[in-house]
Amino acid sequence: MSISAKIIESVPNFSEGRDIEKIERIVQPFRGREGVKLLDYQRDEDHNRCVVTVVGAPEPLKAAVLESMEAAIAAIDMRTHKGQHPRMGAVDVVPFIPVRGISTAEAVEIAREFGRFVGALGVPVYYYEDAATRPERTRLPDIRKGQYEALEAKLKDPAWIPDEGPATFNPKSGATVTGARFPLIAFNVNLRATDVPIADRIARAVRHINGGYRFVRAIGLALEDQGLVQVSLNLTNYTQTPIHRVLETIRSEAARYGVSIAGTELVGPVPLGAFEEVVRYYLRVHNFRMDQIIETALL
Amino acid sequence: MSISAKIIESVPNFSEGRDIEKIERIVQPFRGREGVKLLDYQRDEDHNRCVVTVVGAPEPLKAAVLESMEAAIAAIDMRTHKGQHPRMGAVDVVPFIPVRGISTAEAVEIAREFGRFVGALGVPVYYYEDAATRPERTRLPDIRKGQYEALEAKLKDPAWIPDEGPATFNPKSGATVTGARFPLIAFNVNLRATDVPIADRIARAVRHINGGYRFVRAIGLALEDQGLVQVSLNLTNYTQTPIHRVLETIRSEAARYGVSIAGTELVGPVPLGAFEEVVRYYLRVHNFRMDQIIETALL
Repeated sequence: MSISAKIIESVPNFSEGRDIEKIERIVQPFRGREGVKLLDYQRDEDHNRCVVTVVGAPEPLKAAVLESMEAAIAAIDMRTHKGQHPRMGAVDVVPFIPVRGISTAEAVEIAREFGRFVGALGVPVYYYEDAATRPERTRLPDIRKGQYEALEAKLKDPAWIPDEGPATFNPKSGATVTGARFPLIAFNVNLRATDVPIADRIARAVRHINGGYRFVRAIGLALEDQGLVQVSLNLTNYTQTPIHRVLETIRSEAARYGVSIAGTELVGPVPLGAFEEVVRYYLRVHNFRMDQIIETALL
Repeated sequence: MSISAKIIESVPNFSEGRDIEKIERIVQPFRGREGVKLLDYQRDEDHNRCVVTVVGAPEPLKAAVLESMEAAIAAIDMRTHKGQHPRMGAVDVVPFIPVRGISTAEAVEIAREFGRFVGALGVPVYYYEDAATRPERTRLPDIRKGQYEALEAKLKDPAWIPDEGPATFNPKSGATVTGARFPLIAFNVNLRATDVPIADRIARAVRHINGGYRFVRAIGLALEDQGLVQVSLNLTNYTQTPIHRVLETIRSEAARYGVSIAGTELVGPVPLGAFEEVVRYYLRVHNFRMDQIIETALL
């Protein structure tokens, strides 16, 4: 219970989804390690890819990710890799995500330490999202365009000199993308209506691209089985665009059409911090502090 | 981070509030102990009493409480104890409170283990609250009536045979009360009104004694400095009477008088579990599970 108050998450993506023995070697460093907790790992045979979700204190987590990465570099040969998911390297992408007591700047520094280590092993490394060194390297799909197969030519292009490691093609390992990003909350709001255009108009009202909240991506879609429509949202920064504000705007926009909220869904893991504003707003408890929660005293 | 998923709280009350050296000996067992966290301790010279708040995994917490209790039994002599707060023994009362992953039955068993240990040291022990062996021993004030000074006579009364330990007076240590109770949430709702009778009527609408919710105690009072009135509540079982339901009833009763909620206060520590229904209700996320919160995966 003498735990670091700092918690960081990492979601490394490895280009191996079929050979269970290799995957076990890659995942092993996350098991039974003091200060690290393996939350989930999913392998997909069609994608030929394995996605690990792990949280922990920064130092042990970083050590575990490095060890796992070395196992993946040894085990995976990109020359023979086929799969449906876009990929550029054996250790394809390794985001670091602040969960508790970690600033974006700290998460970026952790990603850079990881990047320097991977680069020193002879693998070209690109930084993305909050760790990006140029605007055109912010988005993963932009960096990964053309995938592994285009990498040899790409590395000869001065615009694509890697951020760490050699500017020469490593046929066995490809390249690795790493960086830091804020935790994303997948939040769906189900509406008592069957016309998708209503969900669509509400999605447009709240999403950034159409003038809505800065840290919201949203689409409208039908839930045909349930006879409902859904506004499906990604909240990309819950401190600046909090959950309750988006929900209340959806409620108010839906009311224009006489539509009410049937229910909502929070998909996957959510940092405790995302509920701080929810509790404050709905319980009207203006001075509430997270350290009043007994469990957080133990973290 | 290899923490027990079970967390229990204890709030031992010791009859020593003046001799700092003795208090340090009593509190020492809660410091620097793996699996135990000292949240708070308060000594009061007028009360001549020290109240410790400690949380942890059941086994190490129990061990720490026992060790602290032995230090208190050695250090405190009730024959010379004077103070304003009612008390019956050196280790006066030791509640165990389930915080996470612990049932009331388990908390009762932990209190009973503690009680047997204290009894074996020659101190009469009474079980109270959820650990009570008879209805008339449920409430602490009923057991403690007459205090230390009445204890010698009380122990001769067959109605007050102790639950553990000898039925003979131990002049140095008095008697100890222990048991289990649900965590209590201190919740205040401030109203934009200056007439206390409105706060009083709302308090009566929600509190158990007047026909309100089963696990609510409440009073109305004035916040003169702020020009507001307050409904001051104790929620004694948040799983059966959840915070949001009480707040929404207060909101609706206040609306009868055209009164709105200015804000609320959560006083002191609150278990994370108390917010599960708050999040579900206000975000309308019917299927939300606490294990979706990343931090709880580490507990």
